[in-house]
Amino acid sequence: MMSLSATHLDIQVSAYDVATQQVINPVTFEAHSATLEQAIANVDAITAEFEHIPADVLAVCQQTGKFYPGAEAILTGGDRGKEKALLEKAQVACAPYALITEKSHFLDAIDKLGKPLVVKTCQAGYDGKGQWRVKHDDEVDAIWQEMSEFLAAGTDTTPHAIIAEQMIPFDREVSIIGVRDHHGQCRIYPLTENQHTNGVLTLSVAGKEKSTIQAQAETAFSAIASELDYVGVLAIEFFDVDGTLLVNEIAPRVHNSGHWTQQGCHVSQFENHMRAVAGLPIGDTSLVRPTAMINVLGQASIPTEVLSVNGVTSHWYGKAAKPGRKMGHINVSASSLHELGERLAELAELLPEDAYPGIAQTSHALILN
Amino acid sequence: MMSLSATHLDIQVSAYDVATQQVINPVTFEAHSATLEQAIANVDAITAEFEHIPADVLAVCQQTGKFYPGAEAILTGGDRGKEKALLEKAQVACAPYALITEKSHFLDAIDKLGKPLVVKTCQAGYDGKGQWRVKHDDEVDAIWQEMSEFLAAGTDTTPHAIIAEQMIPFDREVSIIGVRDHHGQCRIYPLTENQHTNGVLTLSVAGKEKSTIQAQAETAFSAIASELDYVGVLAIEFFDVDGTLLVNEIAPRVHNSGHWTQQGCHVSQFENHMRAVAGLPIGDTSLVRPTAMINVLGQASIPTEVLSVNGVTSHWYGKAAKPGRKMGHINVSASSLHELGERLAELAELLPEDAYPGIAQTSHALILN
Repeated sequence: MMSLSATHLDIQVSAYDVATQQVINPVTFEAHSATLEQAIANVDAITAEFEHIPADVLAVCQQTGKFYPGAEAILTGGDRGKEKALLEKAQVACAPYALITEKSHFLDAIDKLGKPLVVKTCQAGYDGKGQWRVKHDDEVDAIWQEMSEFLAAGTDTTPHAIIAEQMIPFDREVSIIGVRDHHGQCRIYPLTENQHTNGVLTLSVAGKEKSTIQAQAETAFSAIASELDYVGVLAIEFFDVDGTLLVNEIAPRVHNSGHWTQQGCHVSQFENHMRAVAGLPIGDTSLVRPTAMINVLGQASIPTEVLSVNGVTSHWYGKAAKPGRKMGHINVSASSLHELGERLAELAELLPEDAYPGIAQTSHALILN
Repeated sequence: MMSLSATHLDIQVSAYDVATQQVINPVTFEAHSATLEQAIANVDAITAEFEHIPADVLAVCQQTGKFYPGAEAILTGGDRGKEKALLEKAQVACAPYALITEKSHFLDAIDKLGKPLVVKTCQAGYDGKGQWRVKHDDEVDAIWQEMSEFLAAGTDTTPHAIIAEQMIPFDREVSIIGVRDHHGQCRIYPLTENQHTNGVLTLSVAGKEKSTIQAQAETAFSAIASELDYVGVLAIEFFDVDGTLLVNEIAPRVHNSGHWTQQGCHVSQFENHMRAVAGLPIGDTSLVRPTAMINVLGQASIPTEVLSVNGVTSHWYGKAAKPGRKMGHINVSASSLHELGERLAELAELLPEDAYPGIAQTSHALILN
């Protein structure tokens, strides 16, 4: 989606597939004959679409001096320990936490942060993978066994660490997506409310937030982006605890919860990321229309009637279907929150609740509001 | 732009370049090894992006039974004689005209339709090419000389014909873009006001029309599309003569004056054409925001500051620069016509009048309105 929006800007994009170690066309997936080094030498700017990049590839990109948002931001996004350190430096609130490298840290964390306790690997793992939940004392030894195996598997170059986070009862999950240019100017999209199912994002709604909560999220965004001297699109996920936002996670990239900007805003997160990275002026991030996004997870197709609902567009990623895989998403826009609710009600009739959870409930809430 | 919007719909597109006679990737322009016949055998649907298609290629496409909008529509769009016959059948008004195949027809036409008289070749020629204007009696012989040479160059398989059209003093040029699906359902975009400079479209504005004139255009659209049993996007250009619309030209394809739909409507003309051709439900064509489009003609780049004006997006076609060539376009949207005028005023400061005519004047008119 970044490369598609780059086409409009007269920017040519090559992609590097870290899995196959090939330079490819990002739209057709066809492999080029160029090596990574040749491809890098040929371009004006380099960016990343996810944070789990092999260290050697990251180093090669960083050396060029034309890699945005840069290795530090990417590494911070991929490491919960670094993330917490950044939040402290930027003075942005998150849930109380403790870093764990030995058993005594684990026991102290249970004591200090209370049960149930969420324990996560600092590196890798996202969308609910690589996590433990400590609910009872009799689980501690078994969980520590798994944790210590993970810690022992670390090496000097890729040390393993674990973090415990206090489980805060939150009202809902929200995220803010924004873009920062080479001169430090930020433009920030309206806050998005997100629904996760089994740890995976299923539904986002934008355009219904109060200005006070938007202001809190924008302050956090500016502090974090400025601390990283960030260039490009940055996403921050929060827990909303009774009107106070606590950072859950930072993603140094375009983000699934910002996909609605393709229809809800004049310039999407994808185009704004490309604009920022290429040194072009960043574009308008204000809301054009309230918009919701529904993830298509593991489904090879959607009922074609979905496209007959007004305000609906589909976005497919060209991947082979696999259970749970993010295959694409559906955006639905309307001129008011009420109308958005009505359109979601139409979609709820077409998209079964088990594969597309939360649509009917969100629809009701928007119509009643 | 059609293939870019098809990507989102999970439709894979190959293109055939009639100039090089190669099957190519429509985004990267890279050639495939497939022949036209192989490419055609592999696809579910075929469409065209312009009407001047070699007869043999058109015949091959038509034979498949999966070519939309079909050879008859394409041929009609490429032949002013067929176009007028269609308008008569569909009972849609156009300027008085006369077909010319010999000198007596020409003299009769001058007599009947008056001077100045516009005379055009029926086949080929668009955006002001292949035209004569008869203003004085002493020009008649010289112009007939050129006309007769053109007529004589026709063959049995590609006969040449000429049409004379009464020159009607019109207030402005407008166009309507709409889409018709396999079941005959039409969805029609808001009317666009167009400015031509030296016969080439330079500026379009959508979102400012009265409902009476919109209704006239929609009636004409439905009659013409239905007469052709059309599938896909169809564009109709009109002269507005004191509130009455007379058809100037029909284009059986997405149209330059509909490029604003990429930002001004929820589903663009490109996506709707692909939806219709692929048999998917056609999407919402109502106005989301007033939008103007500025053509980039012959310029290899635009000042980057253009992208810093709110509501502005650029769309490049990936072509090498050549004087007068359509290189791309700039869309600008706003929440009101007044704001659109203000944004055009900002653009008028950045885009010189000689290369981008009419922006300042359009801006003033919108702000005053």
